[in-house]
Amino acid sequence: MSASVKSSPGKFFEDFRPGETLIHPTPQTVTEGDLALYRALTGGRYAQYSSAEFARASGLPGLCVDPLHAFHIVFGKTVPDISLNAVANLGYADGRILRPVLPGDTLRATSDVIGVKENSNGKTGVVWVRTRGLNQRGEEVMTFVRWVMVNKRHAGSPAPETVVPDLPAAVAASDLTGFPEMETWYFAQSGSRHVYEDYEVGEKISHIDGMTIQEAEHQIATRLYQNTAKVHFDYHGQKESRFGKRLVYGGVVISIARSLAFNGLANAGQILAINAGSHAGPLFAWDTIYAWSEVLDKAELSETCGALRLRLVAVKDADPGAFLYKDADGKYDARVLLDFDYWAAIPRAR
Amino acid sequence: MSASVKSSPGKFFEDFRPGETLIHPTPQTVTEGDLALYRALTGGRYAQYSSAEFARASGLPGLCVDPLHAFHIVFGKTVPDISLNAVANLGYADGRILRPVLPGDTLRATSDVIGVKENSNGKTGVVWVRTRGLNQRGEEVMTFVRWVMVNKRHAGSPAPETVVPDLPAAVAASDLTGFPEMETWYFAQSGSRHVYEDYEVGEKISHIDGMTIQEAEHQIATRLYQNTAKVHFDYHGQKESRFGKRLVYGGVVISIARSLAFNGLANAGQILAINAGSHAGPLFAWDTIYAWSEVLDKAELSETCGALRLRLVAVKDADPGAFLYKDADGKYDARVLLDFDYWAAIPRAR
Amino acid sequence: MSASVKSSPGKFFEDFRPGETLIHPTPQTVTEGDLALYRALTGGRYAQYSSAEFARASGLPGLCVDPLHAFHIVFGKTVPDISLNAVANLGYADGRILRPVLPGDTLRATSDVIGVKENSNGKTGVVWVRTRGLNQRGEEVMTFVRWVMVNKRHAGSPAPETVVPDLPAAVAASDLTGFPEMETWYFAQSGSRHVYEDYEVGEKISHIDGMTIQEAEHQIATRLYQNTAKVHFDYHGQKESRFGKRLVYGGVVISIARSLAFNGLANAGQILAINAGSHAGPLFAWDTIYAWSEVLDKAELSETCGALRLRLVAVKDADPGAFLYKDADGKYDARVLLDFDYWAAIPRAR
Repeated sequence: MSASVKSSPGKFFEDFRPGETLIHPTPQTVTEGDLALYRALTGGRYAQYSSAEFARASGLPGLCVDPLHAFHIVFGKTVPDISLNAVANLGYADGRILRPVLPGDTLRATSDVIGVKENSNGKTGVVWVRTRGLNQRGEEVMTFVRWVMVNKRHAGSPAPETVVPDLPAAVAASDLTGFPEMETWYFAQSGSRHVYEDYEVGEKISHIDGMTIQEAEHQIATRLYQNTAKVHFDYHGQKESRFGKRLVYGGVVISIARSLAFNGLANAGQILAINAGSHAGPLFAWDTIYAWSEVLDKAELSETCGALRLRLVAVKDADPGAFLYKDADGKYDARVLLDFDYWAAIPRAR
Repeated sequence: MSASVKSSPGKFFEDFRPGETLIHPTPQTVTEGDLALYRALTGGRYAQYSSAEFARASGLPGLCVDPLHAFHIVFGKTVPDISLNAVANLGYADGRILRPVLPGDTLRATSDVIGVKENSNGKTGVVWVRTRGLNQRGEEVMTFVRWVMVNKRHAGSPAPETVVPDLPAAVAASDLTGFPEMETWYFAQSGSRHVYEDYEVGEKISHIDGMTIQEAEHQIATRLYQNTAKVHFDYHGQKESRFGKRLVYGGVVISIARSLAFNGLANAGQILAINAGSHAGPLFAWDTIYAWSEVLDKAELSETCGALRLRLVAVKDADPGAFLYKDADGKYDARVLLDFDYWAAIPRAR
Repeated sequence: MSASVKSSPGKFFEDFRPGETLIHPTPQTVTEGDLALYRALTGGRYAQYSSAEFARASGLPGLCVDPLHAFHIVFGKTVPDISLNAVANLGYADGRILRPVLPGDTLRATSDVIGVKENSNGKTGVVWVRTRGLNQRGEEVMTFVRWVMVNKRHAGSPAPETVVPDLPAAVAASDLTGFPEMETWYFAQSGSRHVYEDYEVGEKISHIDGMTIQEAEHQIATRLYQNTAKVHFDYHGQKESRFGKRLVYGGVVISIARSLAFNGLANAGQILAINAGSHAGPLFAWDTIYAWSEVLDKAELSETCGALRLRLVAVKDADPGAFLYKDADGKYDARVLLDFDYWAAIPRAR
């Protein structure tokens, strides 16, 4: 008897049809074990995600899963159905953090295909999906759009009708939700005295410190999220690839850059929305990640809580105080890894 | 005062007497932290070991410890008493998974010496033990036989009377226990629509994906199980050994191969018995593990649950679709790492 | 707008004033996830920190956080305020473990500056601090003194008045606290039959086994404790440093050496006090840690519990049975990594 076809090589561009909904395996119960590993792998120090007492005092229901951690889990579930054969992860948009995820909650994910566009080379195409993360009660805990470039199964197959979704440049401040009342905030414990009013639009912050990534670290992190993309795990297979080695999952870069951003943004630990994100360059083991931030916008959410719209830029093997970004033609500096635009909650002056 | 002898160099062949029972230190409470680490180190995605809701719906008492994880813990406890001076781990047989292990349970282990046979070289011998894993209530959660080649302390010491146990080639299907009623099974969440009836004896499945192992990963995993065998940890000491480097614990290979087998066997996540196992070749850091499976037998266990007897073969740095195994003389291909024969539960058609 | 100064480059020698108290961010809730990771990273096997049943039977309130683990967490919190710009961690003294830390407890830390002394080179100085670890109820769980050599911000700035604290050579046995009544002790499960009465002052024990450390392992461990010292994480930055590479956090050495000491001191798992500690040499990834111990003193604490004062010496890439230590001039052998003096509880003969 010959080999069976019960294992899946992943989807190709031809397999995506606008309007269809994909239900992704595998649901995952997130525990205190996941939280400890997330901290140990990323270096997280934001007080409301480190201390249950600080979390409750500052308006959260308890020690929650960092929204970025939950994002990686939800994202990871979509990989076998969306991006196993992806050439590139092109971007994120309209990401909304809707509900806290607590240890013991089970996350699952669905994706609606909302756009397809074949590339002019006839070999690849772009697929847009809106992904939803749901908890065990069926409540939506987050939603985001991402788009990826996917290989076609057959170069000759006919192009589908182009559908390109209309996406907002950023989540409007008036749409932000899920922020707590920050009436009590233990500034001595949080690592910074700086509040909403201290930050100005246009201000740039170097986060100073660097963190080098090892193969074992990014593999452990990526498996923690049940993300199975081959490029992160299969050294033997990657020897023949463009880079000749394993590529670090982009989510590892986001989380480490956000952890580094503690030094300068210690009170802005809670992400409320992901406006946009681009993985500008590849990261490999032994590279060192540094980060800087720019305040893009500000919004008052309540008497006690404000929001900063921040650009988080991760660079590799370069001084974050040089604020490397784009050249005059709008092309990213070769050392830029990540350009990530998000809203974070921060206490107001009292 | 000279050095004391309170530390142990491990047992040698002369120390094993058929009929004796060894009580192994150290009991270990398994927590949600262990589960998170096990997933992060192996890449596990079987739904009933990932989601508490899926587990309960499909007949398990909750999010349980994967039986392979529990096996590694029980096995690890036996190492200081059995295989610290082992030349080789020769095989496993008659492994039965008897009860679920839940977070909060404490595992301990005992071993009965059931066989000894000196090798003709007079320098080593084979020892057979039946190991039992017990929980905090003294209930047996699993039992298995393994045999190892152990160095003699003195080449000249007299050979013991040979005792070789009678071992079954496989656990009989009628002896399988501990399987749940799988009345509810969320196929959309489990990652596959394939049920018991879809698999045929003789069918081979390539699991496609590969996973490269790093030194840090196998060391962390092996310590998680409290397995202390020197060959896995002591690079300085191993420089003078046959391979000149650390050897990866064979249990790491089993668990990663089983995780890779998700792609083709997603609904067969629960191991019921270990029939046989051989570590055909050594694995080192930077090697990439691939896996394929063959259906060896099938058995109907209830109206809702069947069992597949599977051969899981792990290969290194080689296409799993080539189904590398043995040559005409019955000798394993040099790229074969593991030949593992087990029974797994799988839902029946409904 | 130019770069803001909201991120901190750390304190310099001029910033420390005797009498001031520093409140360190970030409080950290320690969970079962932390315990699992600590075991997986260090190889811990002491029964009372491995099994909840063993812990309760032997007089502890449950599965507690290993006092060394708690020490690393408390220490880690002090790094951004004390030793981010430290040239060297010079020593510890008068460390007292006062209360058990249980999963779910939240640890935070404060430090009193108790001494300053500028070095004759005018470029660096020594700072002494007494650090306290507190739980969520404000109870002191441990306290210790440490002193570090710190760079001056400006070589020319005036020297402060010298204040050098008076420190005990060891915690007096009569001051030891927090030890349990060890009425029940399951010797078959603990890994050793040796009790208090079996150890003699002057006795040396080789712990035989070795453990090699990888970059990923020490980084994960150090982040688990939220210790952010740059020298452990920033390979790019360290290329220009004296060693040209990342240095392993000294706490990693202490914990691994203590885990190796299980082989010879299996019943002495609970640390009661830290008398002194010196990091005699640097450790780097790929080095192998071995350890030996010497019994320095003994004290009867109760009818059931005694204490051993132990010197734990870690060496790298060298036989622990050679008991490498100091030469005739009192200079450490180049292979000595750690000289650690502590009290541990151990059951008495029954």
